[in-house]
Amino acid sequence: MPSPEPDRLPTFADILEARERLAPRAVRTPLLESPALNELVGGRVLVKAEALQLTGSFKFRGAFNAISKLSPEERRRGVVAFSSGNHAQGVAAAAKLAGAPAVIVMPDDAPAVKLEGTRRWGAEIVTYDRTNHDAREGIAARILAERGGSLVRPFDDPDIMAGQGTAGLELLEQAEAIGARLDAVIAPCSGGGLASGIALAVKEKSPATEVYSVEPEGFDDMARSLAAGERRKNAEGGRSVCDALLAPQPGVLTFAVAKRALSGGLVASDADAFAAMRAAFLHLKLVLEPAGALPLAAVLSRRYDARGKTVCVVASGGNVDPETFRQALAA
Amino acid sequence: MPSPEPDRLPTFADILEARERLAPRAVRTPLLESPALNELVGGRVLVKAEALQLTGSFKFRGAFNAISKLSPEERRRGVVAFSSGNHAQGVAAAAKLAGAPAVIVMPDDAPAVKLEGTRRWGAEIVTYDRTNHDAREGIAARILAERGGSLVRPFDDPDIMAGQGTAGLELLEQAEAIGARLDAVIAPCSGGGLASGIALAVKEKSPATEVYSVEPEGFDDMARSLAAGERRKNAEGGRSVCDALLAPQPGVLTFAVAKRALSGGLVASDADAFAAMRAAFLHLKLVLEPAGALPLAAVLSRRYDARGKTVCVVASGGNVDPETFRQALAA
Repeated sequence: MPSPEPDRLPTFADILEARERLAPRAVRTPLLESPALNELVGGRVLVKAEALQLTGSFKFRGAFNAISKLSPEERRRGVVAFSSGNHAQGVAAAAKLAGAPAVIVMPDDAPAVKLEGTRRWGAEIVTYDRTNHDAREGIAARILAERGGSLVRPFDDPDIMAGQGTAGLELLEQAEAIGARLDAVIAPCSGGGLASGIALAVKEKSPATEVYSVEPEGFDDMARSLAAGERRKNAEGGRSVCDALLAPQPGVLTFAVAKRALSGGLVASDADAFAAMRAAFLHLKLVLEPAGALPLAAVLSRRYDARGKTVCVVASGGNVDPETFRQALAA
Repeated sequence: MPSPEPDRLPTFADILEARERLAPRAVRTPLLESPALNELVGGRVLVKAEALQLTGSFKFRGAFNAISKLSPEERRRGVVAFSSGNHAQGVAAAAKLAGAPAVIVMPDDAPAVKLEGTRRWGAEIVTYDRTNHDAREGIAARILAERGGSLVRPFDDPDIMAGQGTAGLELLEQAEAIGARLDAVIAPCSGGGLASGIALAVKEKSPATEVYSVEPEGFDDMARSLAAGERRKNAEGGRSVCDALLAPQPGVLTFAVAKRALSGGLVASDADAFAAMRAAFLHLKLVLEPAGALPLAAVLSRRYDARGKTVCVVASGGNVDPETFRQALAA
């Protein structure tokens, strides 16, 4: 494998460096607030609108940070990634902006909006059968062996985690600018890149603020891993509308950070996600995909009780097919 | 009538003052950009996302500016407004924040999301039959005669126009910050408060930038008025899904500014509006109501040819019922 296994945890300094790299390219997404949402939860809810990030999700941050660190020669040989869709688009966009060709391995049932978004950035797409989850790493390895190039991991990589952590740095600054002291930050969790990156930033700058991950029912590997103190896997065969949050277990590096920095793992249902998508539509005018709505869902469903508190929920992405969005509005 | 007829045009200095009043309360809405939209139009499209403003539309700006100027005694007596829904919510929120009771006269067929939004801010709502458009001013006058208080006009008022103009000031600064020189700004037009306020700001700071209004088919009173050089009325009985853009003719003050500052009036169809709502959903992750999507519609439909140009479209609001949004996504 051309990319060596990562062997170190990212630091706060890595996040600061990532921010410098991202500054000219990434969107400083707004922190939104709605009196109606505040009233519904009986507290203050600040929404970090990463759906407004380039490519429609936070994934651009990590991908651009990682690809920016490649040498000109490495860029020329190109990058390879496997992803259910948001990392795919993030890598495709970052590769395009960095002048590197990209091959992306995606499940054949990924939302059309994510397949199209990836294609639009000029990436080559190779699909695989989602039910055979392990296949994707094998396909990526074969492509790397045949063509060369660098693997851009979806989450278990210090550069990816540091890139995602820039969202945490921003939300802290934005909360401070409006005089809000955060009791908690809630981020969605698949492999844990976003949650651990954000936790790293939050624990450095505001140690009293608690950080929670949130996962879909049936995919609560991080919640169970945190409770057990070691990595746990999901049972196979689960289904969730949160197509972006189906990783089978936390990463090694992401869990090492999460174990230290997270206060716990929350779980929310598909119905909760749809209700939160509807609430974001009505009160924030923001399009969220199910995964991106899950932190808001955790608060609206009282799985995290925000009464009397100030909480930042990370609305991580908005790449949802029109038909799924129509279902959420009708629910 | 307790509120004297306005007798002066707003100035650029009024917009600067309005900005100071609004700073602690209004959202500095982001200027969004999507490579996919740029590709579709063959130019650069910057989207001023006023749907993310407090109350879901730009209307909060003018309402808060006007109500902020009332004396404590005037605030105590309360405010009255008539509106199809966005001004209603803007006034209700501004009145609440300024400590003034509010009565809002609304058509009985206003979108439920707008009626609910107005009620949520604690305003008293009085409904009227929309087909009898003149009735609303009569009802507002009767309420003022009976209870006292100040009328907050929907558009033909220098304080309202100056408040809406702050959106123009912001978009200019935001465009400058990313090195974009604007060839044109396109704003939706009902009575003309937003279009004229923005034009006032744009012509002061960037005289070479053209400003256009855009209206729904059948409600192109501003376009025909600009062409004729004097105010024209719409024929009665027209229908449009753009419920926020149905004013029968431009205001006296708004037209006086528009005549001098606008380069012309564009027109787009309901189908164009739905297509633009879908595009904003897919590429910006932004919920727009039909009226708020009309400037983007003008560009996507080539009614304004943006090829090779840099254009800012004002996405003025996002208060749309789920059912209408579902229709737009299915179209």
